[in-house]
Amino acid sequence: MNDKDRINGFQREDLDRLKKELDANPDAGRFKLRAKNRWIDGAQSLNLVSSFYGMSREFSARSTPFIQTTDAPTVLLGKDVGPMPMEELLVALAASVTTTLSYRAALAGIQVEEIECEVEGDVDLQSVLDTTEVASRGFEQIRVNVRVKSEASEELLAALCAWSPVLESLKRPVPVTISVKKD
Amino acid sequence: MNDKDRINGFQREDLDRLKKELDANPDAGRFKLRAKNRWIDGAQSLNLVSSFYGMSREFSARSTPFIQTTDAPTVLLGKDVGPMPMEELLVALAASVTTTLSYRAALAGIQVEEIECEVEGDVDLQSVLDTTEVASRGFEQIRVNVRVKSEASEELLAALCAWSPVLESLKRPVPVTISVKKD
Repeated sequence: MNDKDRINGFQREDLDRLKKELDANPDAGRFKLRAKNRWIDGAQSLNLVSSFYGMSREFSARSTPFIQTTDAPTVLLGKDVGPMPMEELLVALAASVTTTLSYRAALAGIQVEEIECEVEGDVDLQSVLDTTEVASRGFEQIRVNVRVKSEASEELLAALCAWSPVLESLKRPVPVTISVKKD
Repeated sequence: MNDKDRINGFQREDLDRLKKELDANPDAGRFKLRAKNRWIDGAQSLNLVSSFYGMSREFSARSTPFIQTTDAPTVLLGKDVGPMPMEELLVALAASVTTTLSYRAALAGIQVEEIECEVEGDVDLQSVLDTTEVASRGFEQIRVNVRVKSEASEELLAALCAWSPVLESLKRPVPVTISVKKD
C-alpha cells in the first residue's frame, strides 16, 4: 500500500466500496444513533455512547463504550468537571464540519492537509434559569470558522463543509418526541 | 450545613443568589459558549472546550480544559476511537434534558432522586456520503425517553424537561453562519 492508495487518511478502495454498498442498498444508510445519560448530582451527569443500528444490522456495543461527564462551571453552580451540554452541542457541530469536509473532499478526490474549526454560540441563560420566562430559547446564533490547508478553492471547501449533518440538524427544525415516565 | 439546605445536589442559597443576580442584571445571562476542533486523520479529530463568556465577563480558560476524540465506527471507515459527531449531538441532548430537569426541579422546590435519559435519532447517511444527493438531511426524527424517581407528577416533570436549551436548539431552526478560510 502506498500513498496514492490513500486520501485524507482513508483508503480509496474503502471509500469506493462504501459508496457502492450504499448505492446498491440505500436502506444500509439508514442509521439509528443513540446516547444514554445518568444523573449524578446537581448539574453533573454521565453519558454513554455504545450501540447503534446501521448497514442493515445492529451493532450492539462498541468494544470500548465512550463515557463522558457533563457538568456546569462553578458560576452556574456546577463542579466544572465536564463541559456543559450546550458546549457538547458545539463540539458535535465543530467535529461534524471537520469530519464531513475530510470525507467529502476524499470522495471528490481533493486532498486536505489540515482542518481546524472554531465554533461560538450565543445563548441567553436567563431564559433557561429564570422561572418567570415562558420558554427556553436555545441557541440564538452560532458562528463557525474553519481554517483549511488544501489546494482547492475556498468556495469548494465551503460547499463541502455545508454537507455536515449536525449543521443541517441545527439549521432545520428536527421533530423531537419526549416521553417522561416515573419509576 | 444540613440536608434541608440542599436540593437535588444544589445549595438552596446558591440557587437563590444566581436567580437574584440574573434578575438584577439580565445581561449576565447572555453567554457565549465555544468549542474547537482539530482534524487528525480520516474521520478522527480532537475537540477542546475551555473558555466561555458569561455573567458579564470572560472566563478565559477552565483549570482543566475538556478534550474529547470523535471518530467513526469501522463500517464508516473510522478507527472507532470516539463517538461520531452525530452521537455527540445526542449526548448533548440527553445531558441537557437531565441537567435542565435537575435545575428546574430544584428552582421549583421539587426533589428528584434519580434521572436516566435515553435518546435515539434517525439519520440517512446516504444523504451524507452519496455524492449524487443534493443535500444532507441531518436527523429526521429524535426520540427522548426519560425515567425519573420523584414525588412530582409525570406531567410536571415533562414540563420541566421541555425547558432544555439543547432540545429547543434542535426543535427550532438556529441561524448558523459558516466561514471557510484557506491557510
